[in-house]
Amino acid sequence: MAIDQTDCIFCKIIEGELPAKVVYEDDQVIAFEDIHPKAKIHLLLVPRSHISSLEQLEVKHEALISHLLLLLPDLARRQGLQDGFRTIINTGRGGGQEVDHLHIHLLGGSQLPGF
Amino acid sequence: MAIDQTDCIFCKIIEGELPAKVVYEDDQVIAFEDIHPKAKIHLLLVPRSHISSLEQLEVKHEALISHLLLLLPDLARRQGLQDGFRTIINTGRGGGQEVDHLHIHLLGGSQLPGF
Repeated sequence: MAIDQTDCIFCKIIEGELPAKVVYEDDQVIAFEDIHPKAKIHLLLVPRSHISSLEQLEVKHEALISHLLLLLPDLARRQGLQDGFRTIINTGRGGGQEVDHLHIHLLGGSQLPGF
Repeated sequence: MAIDQTDCIFCKIIEGELPAKVVYEDDQVIAFEDIHPKAKIHLLLVPRSHISSLEQLEVKHEALISHLLLLLPDLARRQGLQDGFRTIINTGRGGGQEVDHLHIHLLGGSQLPGF
């Protein structure tokens, strides 16, 4: 099913058409606070390119994938999460994915969802 | 704190010194069933190199990082998870990490932990 990028709320945040509490951005990615936080700290790390899910990643995205993963500890530290953090990626409806634009949840603080 | 690799249970699984239900392996990574599954399908995808956590990843690991992430959808499909799956990486004690060897949880089926 083709995804209409013009309806993508993360693309709109990236374009500045929707507000978000942005905590980090560079030429490849943006990180902002989840509007429905599931933990004390709950960020979403999102590539600027509209890649709909983990399933759409290809070898050509190698540098982007690495950049995303290597950023996570830095983002966590900037949020004061010195003791650690949880990373969740939901893929597809059966995986709980709600927005069809690849995003990595970064969670920290007490009562983390998951295990 | 230095981690004694000889005490690492995932290194022992990789070396064949501890049993595991291995579902995939290549020269860089191994995937096996979690012995305490938190969902119908619960795999651990682990690099063969002893990297203790996400925090120890560096730019030199770019190809490995990409390989790990690109493998996830393939592993999920092989497990019959056509509707999607969840990926969790716990980093540090505060993030719920229990084994100090980088591992990616791949979960699928009903009643997924997380959200």
